Formats: sequence, structure tokens, C-alpha cells
Amino acid sequence: MSTNYLASAMSRIDSSEIRRVFALAASLKNPINLSIGQPHFATPPNIIAAMDKAARDGHTSYTQTNGIQPLREAMAARYHQTNGFDSDPGQILISSGVAALIHLFMLAAINPGDRILITDPCFLIYRSMLNFAGAVVEVIPENFDRDTVAAMQDQKYKFIIYCSPSNPSGYVMRREQIEWLGQLADACGAILVADEIYELFDYENRFVSAGSVYPRSLVFSGFSKSWNMTGLRLAAVATPRGSGDTWQIIQAMTTLQQYTFVCAPAPVQWAGIEALRTDISDYVNQYRRNRDRCVHMLRGSYTIDLEPGGAFYLFPRLPAGRTDREFVEAAIQQKELLVVPGRIFTSQNDRIRISYAAEEDILERGLQALVELAA
Amino acid sequence: MSTNYLASAMSRIDSSEIRRVFALAASLKNPINLSIGQPHFATPPNIIAAMDKAARDGHTSYTQTNGIQPLREAMAARYHQTNGFDSDPGQILISSGVAALIHLFMLAAINPGDRILITDPCFLIYRSMLNFAGAVVEVIPENFDRDTVAAMQDQKYKFIIYCSPSNPSGYVMRREQIEWLGQLADACGAILVADEIYELFDYENRFVSAGSVYPRSLVFSGFSKSWNMTGLRLAAVATPRGSGDTWQIIQAMTTLQQYTFVCAPAPVQWAGIEALRTDISDYVNQYRRNRDRCVHMLRGSYTIDLEPGGAFYLFPRLPAGRTDREFVEAAIQQKELLVVPGRIFTSQNDRIRISYAAEEDILERGLQALVELAA
Repeated sequence: MSTNYLASAMSRIDSSEIRRVFALAASLKNPINLSIGQPHFATPPNIIAAMDKAARDGHTSYTQTNGIQPLREAMAARYHQTNGFDSDPGQILISSGVAALIHLFMLAAINPGDRILITDPCFLIYRSMLNFAGAVVEVIPENFDRDTVAAMQDQKYKFIIYCSPSNPSGYVMRREQIEWLGQLADACGAILVADEIYELFDYENRFVSAGSVYPRSLVFSGFSKSWNMTGLRLAAVATPRGSGDTWQIIQAMTTLQQYTFVCAPAPVQWAGIEALRTDISDYVNQYRRNRDRCVHMLRGSYTIDLEPGGAFYLFPRLPAGRTDREFVEAAIQQKELLVVPGRIFTSQNDRIRISYAAEEDILERGLQALVELAA
Repeated sequence: MSTNYLASAMSRIDSSEIRRVFALAASLKNPINLSIGQPHFATPPNIIAAMDKAARDGHTSYTQTNGIQPLREAMAARYHQTNGFDSDPGQILISSGVAALIHLFMLAAINPGDRILITDPCFLIYRSMLNFAGAVVEVIPENFDRDTVAAMQDQKYKFIIYCSPSNPSGYVMRREQIEWLGQLADACGAILVADEIYELFDYENRFVSAGSVYPRSLVFSGFSKSWNMTGLRLAAVATPRGSGDTWQIIQAMTTLQQYTFVCAPAPVQWAGIEALRTDISDYVNQYRRNRDRCVHMLRGSYTIDLEPGGAFYLFPRLPAGRTDREFVEAAIQQKELLVVPGRIFTSQNDRIRISYAAEEDILERGLQALVELAA
């Protein structure tokens, strides 16, 4: 039988570009890998010990749908102390990673045809899942200025979504940029959605949480990157106290979590409390040095126009005449180097994403290869 | 601003009945709780130790989207030895619980207007999420006979979904029933979807896996109930080797997992291999005794027409004239007893779900209360 059993929305998800790179990379035995989207350091052992203690204490059963109260309280304390806004622990939803939250948000709040503004470049999941949901996606460059936003005041958006520090560029959204987005949101009734998963990787102390600037915002906070808990699946969404529209969305996300993710892994939720007490500034300092080294090595050959102030990525423009797909193939074939083609994150095709979450010797070999590839 | 920011599909999810029961139950300090959907025993300590070892060995990062190879191989071996069908480890998808798999399946394969046949009563997530997806849901009683299926041969369904052993009734689908569903599926081009999460709780050795009967089937296997890993979030979906349509669906589910669940919790995947080696027959024997005790105590007062051969539930009909909502309220108020109103699982309103996954003394107190409530 040749029936197609797939939902028609599947045709709007295209993961072929990533598969192409994986297929090319599969031939490499020991690549110089600057494509990785997670820290290169190990999960701190105190977090692993806390997870084990929780499991041995019997925390292996379903938790409340919205997450354990002590973790929601710890998150609320953190939002107050670090992110500069107050939230109600009863209005925080714990889920299985920021991707889970993005998905629950889109399920709960996006209708086909809704107009959504996203910053460009952006994390590929936003665009893929917005397309899947049938939303109409418009973009604004992530280093936008006041005039660009002012010219959009007549546009109607339901949500404005951005990621800061940014994957794939490392760009950190300025406070005034968030204020301008808030003014746009006020003008058109939109809600601000901020993915702040890279917040601790902030090399110039420029990170500002959306929740501290604009009340009608949803703040996504992840554990995966800060403490290398990518395989443990933990994240939280919060909103400044008193915002009814955003709380209504978190409630709907919680209802849907009951039918889908059920709860974040129970012992990991307990480990999350320990993570919040765990200092990673040594790693952040190392990544700052890595970032500096990358900029120093590459600025002669590449255009680094999106200032890499955070996360652990650069998203440079290739030398004139080069395209990302051709460049990535050459890097694999000539240098056994893995980087990510920019078109996964943007409609432009002359950029690559470089991750500097790597050991020093690997990074040095990769930078040397990148300099040679640009020559 | 009074805009409604929710997706319109949210209006098709109704969790008010469950919230009503929770609200009523919240007043109880120490209820006789026969409402729980998970085993009462602790997660076996060797599984917890395996999880900790995996985490300490560094398995805290993203895994492959479809799950670690050793677990997929262990599942394939299990399907071969226990479930009676051969599957390719490369075609097995590991995810974060059966609810996750149901969700990914519906996202990947259900279009609004698709006609889906489900057995009745059924696990509440099926109906809720099928409604959310805009599917047209039709039902067949889970203890259907040959004539009932024969009369449906002209109907067109895209999928036929059932759960065996059943939540909420404990009914175990007979081999010939699965064969009849297979004939119906052949006649109308449908695919069979079997939720087999309770397979080890099978008190008369009657459980038959859909994969051993019908090649065009998707088999959902969970770790949550068998080893009390409900809070650890682990499950697998497989299909008999050689079925192209079902493999196409699992591929689409895997694509969507990449954007949503990302991967099942990494150390839990390693612990899953240990779970598959862990014998729980003592617990199963205890639940068999609990089941027998329930039937013995209740059959004078309630109609147990759906034979409770597995899982850890009964779904009896209340004495004539009683409705589930009124009965559940009386049970809470008069006996501090928690059971689940049947209407959550079926369109009938004269049934309750009783869970006998409980300590002996609690079960005895609950049964005594149930006898008195029926008087």
C-alpha cells in the first residue's frame, strides 16, 4: 500500500541540510569538531551526586505536572536575584528542556496564520516548528536599531521571539533593544518570548533578561548549557508577577505537558536545585578566552559583524564569493573540520556557525584550518 | 488587554473533570488512595545504581535522537524473545515515556479530519490529544466480538489504537481480537497502534503483542509501570521488520523528536538496559493476589464485566442508579476514599476506575469502603 500516513505539516519541516552535513561528516574518523552545541566540560559531579541521592531517596515517580515546588522556589529566587524580575513559584513551569518549552508554547498558543516576529539569525527549532504550526514568520536582524523597529509599528504580531545570548551568533541583545521590542509589543498587542538558555555565557556582562525590562514576557531558562546537562532534560519558563496574558499561556502549556511530557525527569529536578548553587565562572572565563582567541585569529579572514558577546558561537560572514554549503564541504574534505552551514539559521547563505566549546588544542587546530580555508 | 493568546485547539482539551476530583481530594489529609496510576513499590535499586553509574561515566550529554544503540539492541532482543516479533534496532525510537510517543505519533501522522478507531474505555490521553489534533474519533468496545468488527468492514480508518492490558479496565486483548483488528486494518488501509505499557502485568498469561500478530503495527513499550520508572521518562516504539508504512511514521516521529523531546534522559536510557534484566515477578504475583481480592470483595456489589486480566485496575459498573461523579464525591466525603470517575475514560457515566497498586492494608480499607458505599 502506498498511502502516505504522515501529517501534511510534516512537509513543512526540512531537516535535509543537517542530514547532508551529518552524512558528509560520517566519513571522518577524528574530525576537528567545532560544530557542537554543548559545553565541552563534564557535568559538575555535585549535580550528578544530587541526582543519585534524589533517586535513592525515592524521587523516581511522577512529580507534579508543573515541577517540584522546591525547584520552582529556587528558580523564583534566582529570577529575583540574578534576572531582575519577580515571579510567583506557582506560575513557573518546569519541563524537559527549552526545546520542550518552545514546543509546548507553540502547541498552546500558535494558530495557523498567526504572524510571528523572530530575530535573524535564530536557533533552527523556532523556524522549523513555527513552519510546522503554520505560522507566518517575519524576521528582524538581531542587531536591529531603533529605526528598524520604529518602521514596524503598524505591523501586527502575536509573538516576538528572540534568543539572547544568541545561538548561532553569540550576539547579546542590548537593554534598549528589548525596550524597543517591548514598545512594538505594546503597540500591536504582542507578547515577548525570550530564550535565555545561554544567559551565564555572557562575556561583557551585557545580558539583560526580558523579564526585567518588559512585563508581558515569557522567559525560557535552561539547565542544559550552563551545567552541561544537555542529556538530562531540564528547563523552566517564567513570567513577571502580575502579567495575566502570559500566565494564561503558561497554564495552557502546563495542561498540555500533562498529556505529552508529563513531567521533567524527577531526580533531575532535584539535581537542578544543586545546579543553581554551582558556580561555573571558571568555564565561562575559559570560553571568554576562547572567544577572544577566535576573534583574534579570524578577523583578518572573516567578517565578524554580529558581535559575539555570549553563548559559545561565532557566526561570521565568509570571504566574498564563498557559500556556506561549498565551504562546509571543503572544510570536511580538506581539513577534517566540522562547522555548521549558516543557512540552517538564516536565509543568508554566506555564513557559518563556529562553536568554541572545545578543548584548547582542538580549537587551535580548527582556527588554523579556518584561516587556511579562507586563503 | 483581553486578547486570547491561546491556540484554538486548546478549547478541545477538557481537563476539568480531573481538576474537580483533585480539588475535592485536596481536603483529605490521609486518603485511602486507590486512584494511583503507578506501582506502589520502589524502583529496583539496581536500576537506580545503573543510572548513577551512567551519569558518573559521563552519559549526561545529548544522545542520538533515536536513543542509544545498546538500548535499541536490548529492546530488539526483548521483542524477539518476549513479544514474538523481529524488529530492526535501527528502526526503534527511544523517547521520554509512552505519552511522548503518543504525542509524537499524533504530531507526525494525524491530520484534522482523519478517522481514528479507538477501543472504549481508553486511556484519557488518546481521546484528549486526538481531539486536540482535530481527528474524528470512533470507538469499539474493548471486549468486542467478531461480528462487531465484521460489521465495520466498509468503514475507513487511518489508525486503530488500543491499549492492552488496558488502562482503565485491566482487560487483555485476545489474540483473535487483534487478528480481527488486523483484518479490518487490511480492509481499510489502517495501521494498528498498540500501547503495551502494562504488558508485564498479565495475570493469566494472555497478553499478546500486536507485533506478533499484525505486521503493519506500531508497538509502544514503556518502562514506567514495569519497573516503577514513571518519573524517569523512558519508552520505545517499534514495528515488525519489513513494514514500510510504519517505519515511515517512526522516521517522522524521530524528526519531530529532534525538535521537541530531543532525546530521552541519557542516564535513564542506560538504566533501561538494566531494567530489561530485572525480574519483577514477585510484584506481579502480589498484584495478581490484589486483583483476586478485589474481584472477590466487589463482585457482590459491582458489575465487573470487563475482565481484569492485567494492568492494575478494575473498571466496574456501579450499582444501578449511581453515577460516577456522585459516587466519587460520596467516596471522598464519607470514606476519605479516592477512585477515578469513569467518564474520564469513556462516554458512560456509571463506572469508576479502581487501582489496586497499593499496600495490602490500604487496599483492604478501600475495598471495605467500596462495599459499604455500594450498600
